[in-house]
Amino acid sequence: MLLNVGTFIRSATRFSPFIITHSSPSSPSSFCFSFSPNQTVSFTLKSSQMASFTTLSQSPPKLLFRQLFEKESSTYTYLLADCSHPDKPALLIDPVDRTVDRDLNLVKELGLKLIYAMNTHVHADHVTGTGLIKGKVPGVKSIISKASGSRADVFVEPGDKISFGDLFLEVRATPGHTMGCVTYVTGDGPDQPQPRMAFTGDALLIRGCGRTDFQGGSSQQLYKSVHSQIFTLPKETLLYPAHDYKGFSVTTVGEEMLYNPRLTKDEETFKNIMENLNLAYPKMIDVAVPANMVCGLQDLEPKAN
Amino acid sequence: MLLNVGTFIRSATRFSPFIITHSSPSSPSSFCFSFSPNQTVSFTLKSSQMASFTTLSQSPPKLLFRQLFEKESSTYTYLLADCSHPDKPALLIDPVDRTVDRDLNLVKELGLKLIYAMNTHVHADHVTGTGLIKGKVPGVKSIISKASGSRADVFVEPGDKISFGDLFLEVRATPGHTMGCVTYVTGDGPDQPQPRMAFTGDALLIRGCGRTDFQGGSSQQLYKSVHSQIFTLPKETLLYPAHDYKGFSVTTVGEEMLYNPRLTKDEETFKNIMENLNLAYPKMIDVAVPANMVCGLQDLEPKAN
Repeated sequence: MLLNVGTFIRSATRFSPFIITHSSPSSPSSFCFSFSPNQTVSFTLKSSQMASFTTLSQSPPKLLFRQLFEKESSTYTYLLADCSHPDKPALLIDPVDRTVDRDLNLVKELGLKLIYAMNTHVHADHVTGTGLIKGKVPGVKSIISKASGSRADVFVEPGDKISFGDLFLEVRATPGHTMGCVTYVTGDGPDQPQPRMAFTGDALLIRGCGRTDFQGGSSQQLYKSVHSQIFTLPKETLLYPAHDYKGFSVTTVGEEMLYNPRLTKDEETFKNIMENLNLAYPKMIDVAVPANMVCGLQDLEPKAN
Repeated sequence: MLLNVGTFIRSATRFSPFIITHSSPSSPSSFCFSFSPNQTVSFTLKSSQMASFTTLSQSPPKLLFRQLFEKESSTYTYLLADCSHPDKPALLIDPVDRTVDRDLNLVKELGLKLIYAMNTHVHADHVTGTGLIKGKVPGVKSIISKASGSRADVFVEPGDKISFGDLFLEVRATPGHTMGCVTYVTGDGPDQPQPRMAFTGDALLIRGCGRTDFQGGSSQQLYKSVHSQIFTLPKETLLYPAHDYKGFSVTTVGEEMLYNPRLTKDEETFKNIMENLNLAYPKMIDVAVPANMVCGLQDLEPKAN
């Protein structure tokens, strides 16, 4: 039979799905509808059974957050999910190939639905896990900046928003370590995490920054990026870098503006510091960069004859 | 002159210090008074200057939290502070001797006042940093459980509360890895961090637990400790262990109750698992345990002739 369920006027200020469940325990099923605020919705439910109505997810979006460490390259991978959303949509920032199984197992145990595997930039010190993840979890989209020139499913540009459930990340261009570096910042809004969180890749490290001597790096550009795109965030913003070598896990904008030994200096001094680091040639770069330019899938590329 | 400042009736539901500042910029000084709720307070200020009154710290206590990693022993040290309190009182849980300078520098940069350096237990894999810290920061008190039999300034027992500003940690006895192991849990109350956070030492590790084959360890006791003292906390409680060897940083009670490969088993199976781990003799134990029994100050102890 066709059951006219009625008309709803949504006055909530945010998305809130209605879960409609059939009353028969023998055939459990549910449908999820989403409504925009103040939208008038009428719908008809084809069913031979009476339906019961429950409004779920009235609470604000709730961030599930995990920081994960890969010790060989001292890389931090970040797992974020909107765990108050019925789907628990999740994303991984800067996954590493060696730790993909660990990360995907955690995603599974937490009951999350991984939708994005994204990079802050084309890494030179490890192979990204995005390619492996796409092979293991169908439907996951890889994300990288358009400016990186790398392969991915989705290319982002400054100002773009990446949504997962009712949460989102904002894309900020922070070139200088590489020409395609971006910083992903949690949304600015009443239902978004407070304080905000920024995933800075190698643009800003805790009391440091990424080197600027390869992959289109430029100390001048990095200085400008950090000062215009990161130091302009609220001082309490939590900064999560792609690496740490001293056992730190997080810093804030306010802290780095006071204590970053490089970026608190004037631009000329910063340039001199960066030009005189005398760093060794990165041992992984000749493997990692070509692999990361194709989303970590170099072995699956067709070979030339 | 004696200036009768007046009578105040405190109706706030929580401690809120009044800061009384002198009006003369040439002699800045401040006094901090604390009042219990609904307490009537009168006081007299001896001053030749007019005083101006400002009520600070009306906002709830705010936890500053940092997780710090020592890579040789894969130890996590935790820094906690009440950063809405005027003094910013702070404590370190499980500091490591090798990383004391890093940790104290961070404390200084963040403008915190370190009051406690505490251990969850007598560690066998690294020398505690508490002794070094006491030598470098006068006034810091070391804390350990009375059951540990170790030396410290303050001995805690189950049910004790350790206050820092308006925040506090509750002490829970979780023996089994060693006989003196405790878990420190953030307070239960409207002004305490939500979700609660538990610092489990080696009693519970992420998807694991500490070994039970030395230092008065007992698998039976560990099983009971975790099930009665940790798994009884709310499921969303964040669990921070003293170690992780796979790059995880945090877990929850709910997760470990579902996925801990050892502690989800029945007690007999758990005992069998723990008896058949075939672990090597800990390489640091003969140095670390004697040192930690005297708060990491073995070199400063008078030598026997």
